[in-house]
Amino acid sequence: MSELTIWTYDWVPEGPRGFVRDLRLRWACEEAGLDYAVRTIAFDGREANHLTRQPFGQVPFLNDGELELFESGAGLLHLARKSDRLMPRDPAGEAQTVQWTIAALNSIEMVTVPWWFLRISGDKDNKLTGWARMRLDQLERVLGEREWLAADRFTVADLLMADVLRVPDVRSFGNRPASEAYVRRITDRPAFRKARADQIRHFEAADGRR
Amino acid sequence: MSELTIWTYDWVPEGPRGFVRDLRLRWACEEAGLDYAVRTIAFDGREANHLTRQPFGQVPFLNDGELELFESGAGLLHLARKSDRLMPRDPAGEAQTVQWTIAALNSIEMVTVPWWFLRISGDKDNKLTGWARMRLDQLERVLGEREWLAADRFTVADLLMADVLRVPDVRSFGNRPASEAYVRRITDRPAFRKARADQIRHFEAADGRR
Repeated sequence: MSELTIWTYDWVPEGPRGFVRDLRLRWACEEAGLDYAVRTIAFDGREANHLTRQPFGQVPFLNDGELELFESGAGLLHLARKSDRLMPRDPAGEAQTVQWTIAALNSIEMVTVPWWFLRISGDKDNKLTGWARMRLDQLERVLGEREWLAADRFTVADLLMADVLRVPDVRSFGNRPASEAYVRRITDRPAFRKARADQIRHFEAADGRR
Repeated sequence: MSELTIWTYDWVPEGPRGFVRDLRLRWACEEAGLDYAVRTIAFDGREANHLTRQPFGQVPFLNDGELELFESGAGLLHLARKSDRLMPRDPAGEAQTVQWTIAALNSIEMVTVPWWFLRISGDKDNKLTGWARMRLDQLERVLGEREWLAADRFTVADLLMADVLRVPDVRSFGNRPASEAYVRRITDRPAFRKARADQIRHFEAADGRR
């Protein structure tokens, strides 16, 4: 039996398929060659049916033996400690990886997700637009100068940043060739393509059961 | 000479004093009893004058000997590795601490900061309000059941979460007695009071030089 279990919903509508965040953990396991199982909680009633495991009613969460973890960012850092394919072992390389993982969560996604949320709520030209543009431009400058965010190699920070940037509204907002090449390069990795296909199949298979 | 150097601005206007994020790192060092120095970059021209050290033009950043780190969340996790006063050493306690640190950054602050930004931009009743209310209510349920977020003790996750929740707009938004008691309890710690007083003194001292 696999020690690692990734928990996600049993089903989601078509829109979010390929983007639900269990993909981040599947992808990391595929990159690292770690065995894992996928288990589900019900999408219906998700606001309240798993609060003891995830106090915000979200997915994914992760089991590693006895250990229980929520927050995809925390799951990624946990998996990164298990495999040097996700994070180098030297202190400087590890610090850079953690730094860029947090930057993806708290400097980029903290703007792009609420910006996107306002857009789908009907506020196309919302007041977060200037802030989102500034952050993405700053990141474009970084990505114009290097291939990977941390330690001159692929790390879990690239996995997460590419996942944040590949959201269609973000990807099509402005013209940032270095960022676009980065997203294309990283989402072209076999581990991403397998994780994405597996997730889509997982949710499609549930269509028939509903 | 101190190995740890926290970098912040040389001056900020009165409004943000007591809230600039170098406070998080000062506070963590005070909790852990770690020696540190504080150095500055110019507030004027901050958008461009330190992009080689902080690609988003923000503060703080941290030096630990040769190591250079930006993102306050990454700095906190780095300091937590140096002292078990900030994070327990057992795998479950450490995983819980990282999990709640990420939750503060990516589940709470990802909503509260853009929500607050829209409010100060004139959108008091903005479209992020429902989302902010939901997250703070979910957190209130957690804090009603326990004293600390992780590992039944104070950790760097409490430091960060309390810092996210103590923002006046967040603190006065709705009535959440467990969250309020939590913020009061944690910001009553001597290490917080010293870090806050030191930061305010640091910026005040620069008033005369401008």
